Amino acid sequence: MTKEEEKEIINKKKKTVKAIFTKERILTENSDAARELYNQSRYGILLEDGKVQLSLIEGLYLLEKKKIKVVDNKNKKIRFDDFLKKAEKLEKQFWTRHCVFKDIRDRGYIIKTALKFGAEFRVYDRGVKPGEDHARWIVYPVGEASSLTWYEFAAKNRVAHSTRKRLMIGIVDNENSVTYYEIRWIRP
Amino acid sequence: MTKEEEKEIINKKKKTVKAIFTKERILTENSDAARELYNQSRYGILLEDGKVQLSLIEGLYLLEKKKIKVVDNKNKKIRFDDFLKKAEKLEKQFWTRHCVFKDIRDRGYIIKTALKFGAEFRVYDRGVKPGEDHARWIVYPVGEASSLTWYEFAAKNRVAHSTRKRLMIGIVDNENSVTYYEIRWIRP
Amino acid sequence: MTKEEEKEIINKKKKTVKAIFTKERILTENSDAARELYNQSRYGILLEDGKVQLSLIEGLYLLEKKKIKVVDNKNKKIRFDDFLKKAEKLEKQFWTRHCVFKDIRDRGYIIKTALKFGAEFRVYDRGVKPGEDHARWIVYPVGEASSLTWYEFAAKNRVAHSTRKRLMIGIVDNENSVTYYEIRWIRP
Amino acid sequence: MTKEEEKEIINKKKKTVKAIFTKERILTENSDAARELYNQSRYGILLEDGKVQLSLIEGLYLLEKKKIKVVDNKNKKIRFDDFLKKAEKLEKQFWTRHCVFKDIRDRGYIIKTALKFGAEFRVYDRGVKPGEDHARWIVYPVGEASSLTWYEFAAKNRVAHSTRKRLMIGIVDNENSVTYYEIRWIRP
Repeated sequence: MTKEEEKEIINKKKKTVKAIFTKERILTENSDAARELYNQSRYGILLEDGKVQLSLIEGLYLLEKKKIKVVDNKNKKIRFDDFLKKAEKLEKQFWTRHCVFKDIRDRGYIIKTALKFGAEFRVYDRGVKPGEDHARWIVYPVGEASSLTWYEFAAKNRVAHSTRKRLMIGIVDNENSVTYYEIRWIRP
Repeated sequence: MTKEEEKEIINKKKKTVKAIFTKERILTENSDAARELYNQSRYGILLEDGKVQLSLIEGLYLLEKKKIKVVDNKNKKIRFDDFLKKAEKLEKQFWTRHCVFKDIRDRGYIIKTALKFGAEFRVYDRGVKPGEDHARWIVYPVGEASSLTWYEFAAKNRVAHSTRKRLMIGIVDNENSVTYYEIRWIRP
Repeated sequence: MTKEEEKEIINKKKKTVKAIFTKERILTENSDAARELYNQSRYGILLEDGKVQLSLIEGLYLLEKKKIKVVDNKNKKIRFDDFLKKAEKLEKQFWTRHCVFKDIRDRGYIIKTALKFGAEFRVYDRGVKPGEDHARWIVYPVGEASSLTWYEFAAKNRVAHSTRKRLMIGIVDNENSVTYYEIRWIRP
Repeated sequence: MTKEEEKEIINKKKKTVKAIFTKERILTENSDAARELYNQSRYGILLEDGKVQLSLIEGLYLLEKKKIKVVDNKNKKIRFDDFLKKAEKLEKQFWTRHCVFKDIRDRGYIIKTALKFGAEFRVYDRGVKPGEDHARWIVYPVGEASSLTWYEFAAKNRVAHSTRKRLMIGIVDNENSVTYYEIRWIRP
């Protein structure tokens, strides 16, 4: 191992942020590396005490990317699978939502939950951070074998329209890959 | 009533085109007024013998607008309700399709059926007549209480994409009013 | 019972893969027997952590074949009937789709879902695995008592044509047996 | 008018076969020109008295092509429209069937009714005359806005299979143009 490689590994280790899985959220340690998750990439929210609070969706993604390591109340390490099992008990449609979150993030967009808007997610234009500008889309993740009524379809469009965002449906197939459709209400 | 108004009424009466309801289509008389339905507004198709052949959907619309009067084989007048009853027996989803056809026509677009494209209707841009340019949309009329699978949703998008048209869904509610959504497949 | 037979039975028992039913998918244990489901027969997809993710359709089929045993979050065994009941709540037309999936699989073909192609399933030629070559058919499973418009029929053909696959309709009758029709658009 | 042109007109007149519209069939005069309709192109059937008996579908087609002129019992000329009106009263779906018959004939195939086979039409390969070889297809003409049940679909396939012919569906759209689909029952 060269010194360069050694350094890099140390660097990486340093940067792996420790986080604790409390019932419905993930709390990071109080560190610069933790705050960087928020400052740089807008994961979670910055708390007054210097920690970052992540959603379960964000937590799993960062765990998968090895940006954080997660422990429980007793400081016991939580692996990807255990995390997922816990999260699936707490939140509906967790896997489908994870697939869409991951796909959008991997494409270079910032994606946040959007409860306030009545939607699963909001997505910002590439290069835009929340706060700098409004989100461009609201996104609904669905499984390929599910279905929807036109009432649900109309409701989703109304939500998007009333929040001045575009509506995007992300359909997750059995291979976890996502197909997107943008929909807009028109008066032709 | 002024002479002008009187004239107009007479004119209109003159122009009501007589048409015959055969089981599968509506055939107009051979007259300039009949041919104007095609020449001006692209209703039906122009036959070699100078008559215009209308679809049942077009026939009901023109009957409602009092542009044609319809008779059966025995020259007996067919009213709106009778026409509708006959048409609903012959064609599936006739009322839903009628509502969308009527709404689009009333908005000033030319709308034609689109079996070849794998859709119920094709719609031309305002001011464009079939033949002058390609249709802009394919349109699927659906009743508000129906539903669809994401496979069907994806299929409709694929049809639109492969025919280089935009996809429009027209949802007909219980008051016969239509809400439109334009959908496109995107790779964000 | 000969020793050979005894061995085989033990072998089979060993090979029954344990899998967990989460709301949206089936996850196998991390084992060689599990991975063989994917490697040998292309059930599910292979995850990075060594497990195999199955769709509900695949899960029920493998459960029926006793290739997997399924448990819920609390490690409670899920039987065929319970599995079916859960799946029917989550996915539309589950039984009809199951019948076609099962029948095609039993005939020695690999069949996968096909949202991206705008169809329920895609089917590979005998002996061909996904990735080695393109799928030969897209398949639409329908119940014998349903019906379709010619617009829908034309749309399915257009989807098949635009994806360069053959169109197969699988009609499931009341005894769960499937009749297949291959359809192609021709210009005679 | 040149002598050449004059000759041609006389020639044509000579060849326009006179035929009489009896209730459900068309009977030609007893002439070589009439028999040529059968001998050359297999229109109708050759009667023992030297006349040719045409179906209504064949009659309308030949009238449209000006190969025959049709009169009623009182020797009064019957024009295309009157012919059609009479035929539509006598036979179901006459126009849709006419469109398919015309389209197939115009493409150079011999097409005959196929009551015995339980189908609307049978079609022979290009260049093949009935009697020389078996028909290749049975054809069902349908209107684009109609629909079918899978029972009807299966029945049509069974008819084709049991008569060792291929099944062709000809869908007539509102512009009288026909789209064809060939369907075969397969055991994959």
